[in-house]
Amino acid sequence: MRILFIGDIVGRAGRAIVLDRLPNLIRDWKLELVVINGENAAGGFGITEAIYNEFIDAGADAITLGNHAWDQREALVFIERAPRLVRPVNFPAGTPGRGAALVDTKNGKRALVINAMGRIFMDPLDDPFAAVDRELNACPLRSACDAVIVDMHCEATSEKQAMGFFVDGRASLVVGTHTHVPTADHRILPGKTAFVSDVGMTGDFNSVIGMGKDEPLNRFLRKIPSAKFEPANGPATLCGLAVETDDASGLAVKVGAVRLGGTLEEARPPFWA
Amino acid sequence: MRILFIGDIVGRAGRAIVLDRLPNLIRDWKLELVVINGENAAGGFGITEAIYNEFIDAGADAITLGNHAWDQREALVFIERAPRLVRPVNFPAGTPGRGAALVDTKNGKRALVINAMGRIFMDPLDDPFAAVDRELNACPLRSACDAVIVDMHCEATSEKQAMGFFVDGRASLVVGTHTHVPTADHRILPGKTAFVSDVGMTGDFNSVIGMGKDEPLNRFLRKIPSAKFEPANGPATLCGLAVETDDASGLAVKVGAVRLGGTLEEARPPFWA
Amino acid sequence: MRILFIGDIVGRAGRAIVLDRLPNLIRDWKLELVVINGENAAGGFGITEAIYNEFIDAGADAITLGNHAWDQREALVFIERAPRLVRPVNFPAGTPGRGAALVDTKNGKRALVINAMGRIFMDPLDDPFAAVDRELNACPLRSACDAVIVDMHCEATSEKQAMGFFVDGRASLVVGTHTHVPTADHRILPGKTAFVSDVGMTGDFNSVIGMGKDEPLNRFLRKIPSAKFEPANGPATLCGLAVETDDASGLAVKVGAVRLGGTLEEARPPFWA
Amino acid sequence: MRILFIGDIVGRAGRAIVLDRLPNLIRDWKLELVVINGENAAGGFGITEAIYNEFIDAGADAITLGNHAWDQREALVFIERAPRLVRPVNFPAGTPGRGAALVDTKNGKRALVINAMGRIFMDPLDDPFAAVDRELNACPLRSACDAVIVDMHCEATSEKQAMGFFVDGRASLVVGTHTHVPTADHRILPGKTAFVSDVGMTGDFNSVIGMGKDEPLNRFLRKIPSAKFEPANGPATLCGLAVETDDASGLAVKVGAVRLGGTLEEARPPFWA
Ligand SMILES: [Fe+2]
Ligand SMILES: [Fe+2]
Ligand SMILES: [Fe+2]
Ligand SMILES: [Fe+2]
Ligand SMILES: [Fe+2]
Ligand SMILES: [Fe+2]
Ligand SMILES: [Fe+2]
Ligand SMILES: [Fe+2]
Repeated sequence: MRILFIGDIVGRAGRAIVLDRLPNLIRDWKLELVVINGENAAGGFGITEAIYNEFIDAGADAITLGNHAWDQREALVFIERAPRLVRPVNFPAGTPGRGAALVDTKNGKRALVINAMGRIFMDPLDDPFAAVDRELNACPLRSACDAVIVDMHCEATSEKQAMGFFVDGRASLVVGTHTHVPTADHRILPGKTAFVSDVGMTGDFNSVIGMGKDEPLNRFLRKIPSAKFEPANGPATLCGLAVETDDASGLAVKVGAVRLGGTLEEARPPFWA
Repeated sequence: MRILFIGDIVGRAGRAIVLDRLPNLIRDWKLELVVINGENAAGGFGITEAIYNEFIDAGADAITLGNHAWDQREALVFIERAPRLVRPVNFPAGTPGRGAALVDTKNGKRALVINAMGRIFMDPLDDPFAAVDRELNACPLRSACDAVIVDMHCEATSEKQAMGFFVDGRASLVVGTHTHVPTADHRILPGKTAFVSDVGMTGDFNSVIGMGKDEPLNRFLRKIPSAKFEPANGPATLCGLAVETDDASGLAVKVGAVRLGGTLEEARPPFWA
Repeated sequence: MRILFIGDIVGRAGRAIVLDRLPNLIRDWKLELVVINGENAAGGFGITEAIYNEFIDAGADAITLGNHAWDQREALVFIERAPRLVRPVNFPAGTPGRGAALVDTKNGKRALVINAMGRIFMDPLDDPFAAVDRELNACPLRSACDAVIVDMHCEATSEKQAMGFFVDGRASLVVGTHTHVPTADHRILPGKTAFVSDVGMTGDFNSVIGMGKDEPLNRFLRKIPSAKFEPANGPATLCGLAVETDDASGLAVKVGAVRLGGTLEEARPPFWA
Repeated sequence: MRILFIGDIVGRAGRAIVLDRLPNLIRDWKLELVVINGENAAGGFGITEAIYNEFIDAGADAITLGNHAWDQREALVFIERAPRLVRPVNFPAGTPGRGAALVDTKNGKRALVINAMGRIFMDPLDDPFAAVDRELNACPLRSACDAVIVDMHCEATSEKQAMGFFVDGRASLVVGTHTHVPTADHRILPGKTAFVSDVGMTGDFNSVIGMGKDEPLNRFLRKIPSAKFEPANGPATLCGLAVETDDASGLAVKVGAVRLGGTLEEARPPFWA
């Protein structure tokens, strides 16, 4: 299966490049599963139903979230009618929506998409390792689905790597999100799970994690807020990860970085050239 | 000037690849300045005088540190006779050693090497922005030195990026360290300062941030320590950043990732091929 | 029921005053239930079986723990044969011991003792509110036991107070521990649960939270460890909370501070004079 | 000198009891210096010029702040014309206002009032110990002023106690603020500095740290904000600390808790009965 995961879309610039490029990428690369982290899609904070629908229309098969899941309060409501929207699985019992979704892929297969949130330097939540373990046991790769994607939304590289090894051999891909910077450590772990510590954001990198840089810099220097954080609106880089899995095992055989547009060094998966 | 910065050396495996590869890299790439982050060189925790000398003998011109600076307590003493060893500049007044060093380069020029520690999700210290600003004013690029390297040792991508923009145009390079994962956002900022959020560790990536993965995983899952953290000792990847500066301005003209050996996708600066 | 809760015993000085005073307090005040937080009893770090037995022999009916539960690794083993030792209930599934214990009181009744750990500024754990709620539902006050004591071990006053209100009317007492400083906000909440944000430590207050003050002060000033933390060994203050419950309801009717010995202002429950 | 320090005033209920009681306390107790922490006076968040003037008119000689200093943005401006308003001394250089003020007391003496902010579990700032040390050296007790008050605004009891011992013998009083809960560890340290870990808030204790308890509880349980935090408006408790210093030394001879009104156990300094 040909899988593309696209990292945290930030604001208008991030949305624009996704809507512009994704249909072509699906066609050119013959993508069968596209997952997008959308927690910053609406002005940097959360996601609206209109944006969710735009992403689905552009070809996303699932959209994951994170600590900004509910910044747009409508998400608490529309998530119930948005079966492809996945919020962190370790939110408290009773939280609207779902933490794992079994979605149909473009090639008629089924993929389990899990969103989990780390706890190091993050808000306190229940154990993401136990929560992911439960989901994997409830819907095991191969016997119950054809691919498993785990979006590990967290700050610390240690916690992301630990999640990678924890599910190694049981998931097709563990992809870190949240830091908004792509890491270059994409690889296939010994058990054949593709992994990257952070896929990076999709937004304008002439910024501080996607936000216009003046106010973040002001706060670091003066410790006095002087304006709201607003997304930077220069040319965006689409940051993603390309993974190809073996149909029999559902595990990874190829992994490559994707960086298109904007100010970062371009990267394309050579295996889909 | 041709500059190579090598990220956090972790333990024996990390030291071995540096000692093995660095002399050849200096020769092949005609390197004029080599800076290494050595805070994890001694068994993952701190640095000894013997290791410091090994790195200098292998061609390092300066060695930076971080939150693990004093894990080997001898560092508090030998740093006073190790002029190329640089600890965070924003440690309290009275801390042994220096937070910035003016070092002679291999081509008879002078480079200012500053080590600063961020504060987001880190131990409380004085303001790194104010401290770096003071050092830059005391030894400005061009008028007082030919290159300025800032090692911003911290966790949060926002703080690293803010430091990049804060000194953009005043430093040759701002390189993040500490997360032990290389980021793929190396670029030249608008003011011609080369930047990367994290250069990554030099160590065995079949690990959790350089440490054998069983105990980190055990602690995430059970919350009960059962062993000490020990460096992983499989084949290491050397992670670095290659920067070429303009001799007249001291600012960056080229920047490229370096990843050699081990399990990460190899990268070499095409401009020094 | 006459209940005395004694806060975090720190080291030798703390143990000595408990062993010295507790038998007399039980007799003079006709105590029916005594609960002690013992997470710092062994040299400031954890608890041993010998110390556990000493406390039981001196009259403790239950001993609670906290983030230092396993500092003495023997506790992982002997907790299985120490039915009155209670570790945080929201530790991961599979943790040795128990997070709630139903203990016989001195007057032939039954008391449920729960230990929970907060998450604000603490290690990440599962939700303490949900965990306490489960225990209360499994063994409700009046129908299944005669008193319920919740030791909320945490840093933030907000989280402690929230726990107080969360179980107000369902517990006899919610007592905060961990900061090692007694608070003066003991009161009976509207639903008749006795509450105090922190009961305070039992140890030498000529110290930094029970530890000899030189090394903590050194670390605040210099950011370089120069010695281990050692308990201060001057005269200790026994810090506790006295609660009297109504036999029919199991809820609180009187609450008063207890501070005996050492350097703090003495306090005794006037209602047991 | 007879000194009263009143802790964090929270909202309308907190202001009301101060305005109502303070004039009488000044008269009855013959107070010579009154210092108030006002960081939560305006609806729980910051302070306005009108409120500042009300407190001064009611008899406050100085008003300290904390992490909420600038929640009302007008404070950034009016602090320049409010000589008795003191913000944390370790805010960045260039911050409006002052971190220490030498104020005239009601008996024609001079008192140095310092506000410092801790760093454990707080926003990153420069070293409060070094900053307080500088202020004490610039205006030493006895030679340059008749009393020194240090408001140590922070979360961790360890950092507050360390500050107490750090200035012991050089200040008349070190009083902790910020946790909004009064501690019962008021005492005179060996060097004759009066100390309390936290003086507590002045507000309605039928609340979570002064805020109506529903929304804090909701956030702990559900992790989804559903309303703004609003101060609780039931009867407030005035929490303070009474200190009497020796005129010759400026150091403390008596210290006692003050708790008046509301739901906490009443306390008055017996030595001013
Ligand atoms: Fe994000
Ligand atoms: Fe996020
Ligand atoms: Fe490191
Ligand atoms: Fe580090
Ligand atoms: Fe404790
Ligand atoms: Fe504790
Ligand atoms: Fe406050
Ligand atoms: Fe505060």
